[in-house]
Amino acid sequence: MFDVNDPSYLARCAQLAMVLEVSASPKPGNVDRDHDYPDTTFEHFLASAIGAYPVLELAARSQSGVGALIHASARESLQWQRGGNTHFGAFVLLIPLLMAAGSDTPVSTIVENTTASDAAQFYRAFSIANVRVDSVAEIDLEDPDSIDRILEEDIKLFDLMKLSADHDLIANEWVCGFERTFQCAEMIAENADRMSINDAIVFTFLQMLAETPDTFIRTKFGKEKSIEISKHALEILTGNRDLDAIKSRIHEFDRRLIHERINPGSTADIIIGGLFVALVRGLVV
Amino acid sequence: MFDVNDPSYLARCAQLAMVLEVSASPKPGNVDRDHDYPDTTFEHFLASAIGAYPVLELAARSQSGVGALIHASARESLQWQRGGNTHFGAFVLLIPLLMAAGSDTPVSTIVENTTASDAAQFYRAFSIANVRVDSVAEIDLEDPDSIDRILEEDIKLFDLMKLSADHDLIANEWVCGFERTFQCAEMIAENADRMSINDAIVFTFLQMLAETPDTFIRTKFGKEKSIEISKHALEILTGNRDLDAIKSRIHEFDRRLIHERINPGSTADIIIGGLFVALVRGLVV
Repeated sequence: MFDVNDPSYLARCAQLAMVLEVSASPKPGNVDRDHDYPDTTFEHFLASAIGAYPVLELAARSQSGVGALIHASARESLQWQRGGNTHFGAFVLLIPLLMAAGSDTPVSTIVENTTASDAAQFYRAFSIANVRVDSVAEIDLEDPDSIDRILEEDIKLFDLMKLSADHDLIANEWVCGFERTFQCAEMIAENADRMSINDAIVFTFLQMLAETPDTFIRTKFGKEKSIEISKHALEILTGNRDLDAIKSRIHEFDRRLIHERINPGSTADIIIGGLFVALVRGLVV
Repeated sequence: MFDVNDPSYLARCAQLAMVLEVSASPKPGNVDRDHDYPDTTFEHFLASAIGAYPVLELAARSQSGVGALIHASARESLQWQRGGNTHFGAFVLLIPLLMAAGSDTPVSTIVENTTASDAAQFYRAFSIANVRVDSVAEIDLEDPDSIDRILEEDIKLFDLMKLSADHDLIANEWVCGFERTFQCAEMIAENADRMSINDAIVFTFLQMLAETPDTFIRTKFGKEKSIEISKHALEILTGNRDLDAIKSRIHEFDRRLIHERINPGSTADIIIGGLFVALVRGLVV
């Protein structure tokens, strides 16, 4: 029915992945259709997802320029809404996935082929998006001289991601061939066979969170807390394959995370990547 | 900040208008983020809005072909979701608005210049979208011979709309220069100055419904009922400029309409048109 290499088709799948992810509710700790943050609302995420279209389409037509595309997507997102950073982590996954899908080049090749210029652009994107991260030991993400060092020492964006892979889920995807993203796509498709798309996203979100501590939480609250949150998710899921049966416990988990201001943002980014892959492979709403 | 004639910018404004409209809650009687119909869900509306992008962009590049563009948008919408008709009325407003915005031609000129071929395409779109309408007295919308008659007698799409203008809000917009759409755009912008975008949409929806009986309700339940529903909306609004103060009464109105299966679909279409105009004029989420 669709030409799955068509850049416009792929860009719309990416938009829809972002819109479905932020809509899915109750999604513990994160912005969803029933929960805003004080400065960043559900509508900010919708506008960001829609505003990014031209960059998403350009990515699906490109085989190089990952860093510039990430920078452009972050900039476009910020022009469409006043809620600040909404999709930075998602763009870091989606841009190479779009490039791979548009060209039938493996996504691992796309990211391995990145350059120092990509790394420099990535740093610029970082500073405009105002993202919270752990600086990697070797390179301070908040030091403007870092860009000079990257270019002088010819540090590729892929190399930078290697430095962060052990404490950043998104960087880890780059380094490990987007393994969790593809696994997530299969889980979403499987869950969507037996429940609504909303519930399939929420269920997969809990499964992913239970499996791997969220590194966005780790950055803000430390490793211990991120592990504890994953255990909480696992407790809710254990012995249950039906979302309705655990919905009240998910709501309780949601209230806890909101109260403690803990948001599993990296897990949400992986869900967006997984949804994109599932949609391209034929998942229909 | 944006080039307001850029077709991609305009297409994204149209996508965002549809996505914000369906998200706005509580929107009495209609699908919103907290209410699905049995066969048509919130997510079906999201997928339809996003899937339509290429046709919306093409419309913003076009100065003729309204009928074919409406047909293409209805078809694209149906390919992206399994919920049936979601945005037919919205497309009938958005397509000429996009054509006008992309070319700086007045929208009244765009619709007056339509041809019998546009009318024939519109009929074809009608039948694939499976929309419920009053047939106009002179031309039976469910009779396949109607297309032959349109072409033989050279009946323009604008003329067809004239035949429906007294009992169809959307047709009336075509005939009256999109007066209500532009009025709605101003109301949304005004309301958004003093409340959240969600509340501004809900408030404007009630204002529009209070002012003009919904013709989608009229088609399904008769003129009396459509007038009674508008009176109910007016009662809720009277003396109130604050949404929070009337939210419980809006929820009650919502429950009533859902119980009686009454959905003010034409009013929702006008809201989409108004949101599009407001976004193009600079409304930022």
